[in-house]
Amino acid sequence: MRIMILGGDGYLGWPTAMAFRCAGHDVLAIDNYFRRRIARETKSDALIPTPLLAERAAVFHQMTGQSIATVEGDCCDFEFLSRQFAEFAPEAVVHYAEQPSAPYSMMGFAEARNTLTNNLNATLNLIWAVLEHARDCHIIKLGTMGEYGTPNIDIEEGWIDIAHKGRREKFLYPRQGGSLYHTTKVMDTDLLWFYVRIYGLAVTDLMQGPVYGLSTEEADLHPALVPNFHYDDIFGTVVNRFLVQAVAGIPLTVYGKGGQTRGYLNLRDTLQCIALAAAHPAKKGELRILNQFTETFSINDLATRVQRVATGMGLRVDVQELDNPRKELEQHYYNPAHHGLIDLGLEPHFMTDEVVAAMIERVQAHRERIVVDRIMPRVRWK
Amino acid sequence: MRIMILGGDGYLGWPTAMAFRCAGHDVLAIDNYFRRRIARETKSDALIPTPLLAERAAVFHQMTGQSIATVEGDCCDFEFLSRQFAEFAPEAVVHYAEQPSAPYSMMGFAEARNTLTNNLNATLNLIWAVLEHARDCHIIKLGTMGEYGTPNIDIEEGWIDIAHKGRREKFLYPRQGGSLYHTTKVMDTDLLWFYVRIYGLAVTDLMQGPVYGLSTEEADLHPALVPNFHYDDIFGTVVNRFLVQAVAGIPLTVYGKGGQTRGYLNLRDTLQCIALAAAHPAKKGELRILNQFTETFSINDLATRVQRVATGMGLRVDVQELDNPRKELEQHYYNPAHHGLIDLGLEPHFMTDEVVAAMIERVQAHRERIVVDRIMPRVRWK
Repeated sequence: MRIMILGGDGYLGWPTAMAFRCAGHDVLAIDNYFRRRIARETKSDALIPTPLLAERAAVFHQMTGQSIATVEGDCCDFEFLSRQFAEFAPEAVVHYAEQPSAPYSMMGFAEARNTLTNNLNATLNLIWAVLEHARDCHIIKLGTMGEYGTPNIDIEEGWIDIAHKGRREKFLYPRQGGSLYHTTKVMDTDLLWFYVRIYGLAVTDLMQGPVYGLSTEEADLHPALVPNFHYDDIFGTVVNRFLVQAVAGIPLTVYGKGGQTRGYLNLRDTLQCIALAAAHPAKKGELRILNQFTETFSINDLATRVQRVATGMGLRVDVQELDNPRKELEQHYYNPAHHGLIDLGLEPHFMTDEVVAAMIERVQAHRERIVVDRIMPRVRWK
Repeated sequence: MRIMILGGDGYLGWPTAMAFRCAGHDVLAIDNYFRRRIARETKSDALIPTPLLAERAAVFHQMTGQSIATVEGDCCDFEFLSRQFAEFAPEAVVHYAEQPSAPYSMMGFAEARNTLTNNLNATLNLIWAVLEHARDCHIIKLGTMGEYGTPNIDIEEGWIDIAHKGRREKFLYPRQGGSLYHTTKVMDTDLLWFYVRIYGLAVTDLMQGPVYGLSTEEADLHPALVPNFHYDDIFGTVVNRFLVQAVAGIPLTVYGKGGQTRGYLNLRDTLQCIALAAAHPAKKGELRILNQFTETFSINDLATRVQRVATGMGLRVDVQELDNPRKELEQHYYNPAHHGLIDLGLEPHFMTDEVVAAMIERVQAHRERIVVDRIMPRVRWK
């Protein structure tokens, strides 16, 4: 297949590009380094330096003999994106090209506008590039489990059948995100669903939970192929923050009561999910929504787990409760469905103690690069 | 009260500005004439020429002795809009500043992008101008009944209580619009609801049906004060199209089976609704949603009604079924709630035969300006 990766420089984009290439597909990876730029602007550089796309592709070629095409450009530039679609004629496109940070989107007006403009224009441009140049192309869109929020009823896979006053109707599952970033992903879903039902596009929208891990078959081939690892308050996930705090010898910071529960998955499982979605495309006129995670943890679960494993490795680890910088429920019901990807064949890699230990070892190798003052929350939801 | 009207040049914006001023409020009307520009570009000028805001305000002053402040500017320009909020310090703002045409939003990529960018940026800028300069300002936002689509269950007023697998939760009523324009209004609601629950804004979101009528207390004072009357396929509503077709002696064009049912209201009732919303503001942290219409009609109902009244006035009126240029259900369940505004005190002006006859007379006075070839649908949903 000819597969285009939008946001090919990202934490998920680059490993996805390598995995598809090694599975025998033609791959074009596109990025404008927007995330690198705003990471620099917010003093949130990744722990491990990673080369730009062309250099990564050159190393990948040395190691595997395989080529990944790369182009630097902005998916918010419709003429640019259209040209890529016209020339490459993809059969599938994976859309990761979004501003991915919730705290960034909450810093102020300029960051809110950047997030809204970037995310919605990239999605609109993608839709129209497909309509005009690759009508049969399967769109694989990365959404987030955060679109659903934490409702007091079971979370279904994208859709819900509502019985109301003696009648029934199937609807998109009602969504409400916890940050402007999450809200733009809700709006992306609105936009995609509209164009799917009017023009018969084929779209898979993957509601993904937080991803952890640095190791994939291809990323392990050479240090220059490692994915970005952010541990800062802006781009880092809670898992990465805890790993880095454990290594740096500072307390793991739990926001509020720590009962916030989410669905998590291993980077290797993200790659499996994307591959399964591409191999089993949505039908024309179908918005297929799959909840993409393998297990749920509360923040307290994660802190306990990292603390236990790190202590076993001879590190001294404390846990500290912090005033929550976000507005979110800290104790809540959470029972999201996630059978769709399992039905397609996903074989989960769970977060075992060995997996946690391996991540801690990777962080230890870069210990001297940890900048402690970019870990504590610099952005508040008020 | 100090009331700011965004989109003050529009069909609803200008009558709203006059009505608030005559009720004793300070009024600032803002517009960048975006609708006039795209109406010209799409050969869809209004039936009756209307002067620009400053000239309308001058005529209004002559007739009433009252002043309406007007400013030409773009609500998508945050610095401009912020300055207006800082200087005028409104206690309420009415947000009409959106690209209002469903067919325009479906013409192609450029029009889709214009609609998405204009509508969402205006709403985001408004939210942030309030946050930064007028934190207590009540936002009165015009949504549309079209956000709900035509589901097979009763439409509630913005919210729905869902019972699911033995548990319950209250959600925003699930929305899916019938055009990109309607979809941007759904996205506006997502955006407003997010900022309401995080920052405690006070917002009234009015889900309005199609409005008809040219007559208000103030608009009747002078021909230069008349609202815009669009009858073309881009900006015209079905009511206006039928009125003009009846006067022009061409058949009333019913799209498809004509069973499409919507909630309609008289322009005088829009003014009442906005005044009631302003007099009874939403609470801080409340997104109050009200369904704004007074009676429901199918397209066939409207055609029959206009045909009957026009025939009684000596016109010869045929009805013709057209291939539907839109993708929409032509026979469907429709039972939307609309008690909120009645509870606040709305006294409806229904679409009586006298009201229809008066509108036909107004159109007859401008009969020579009717351009027949801008009535038939030029935009298709495919």
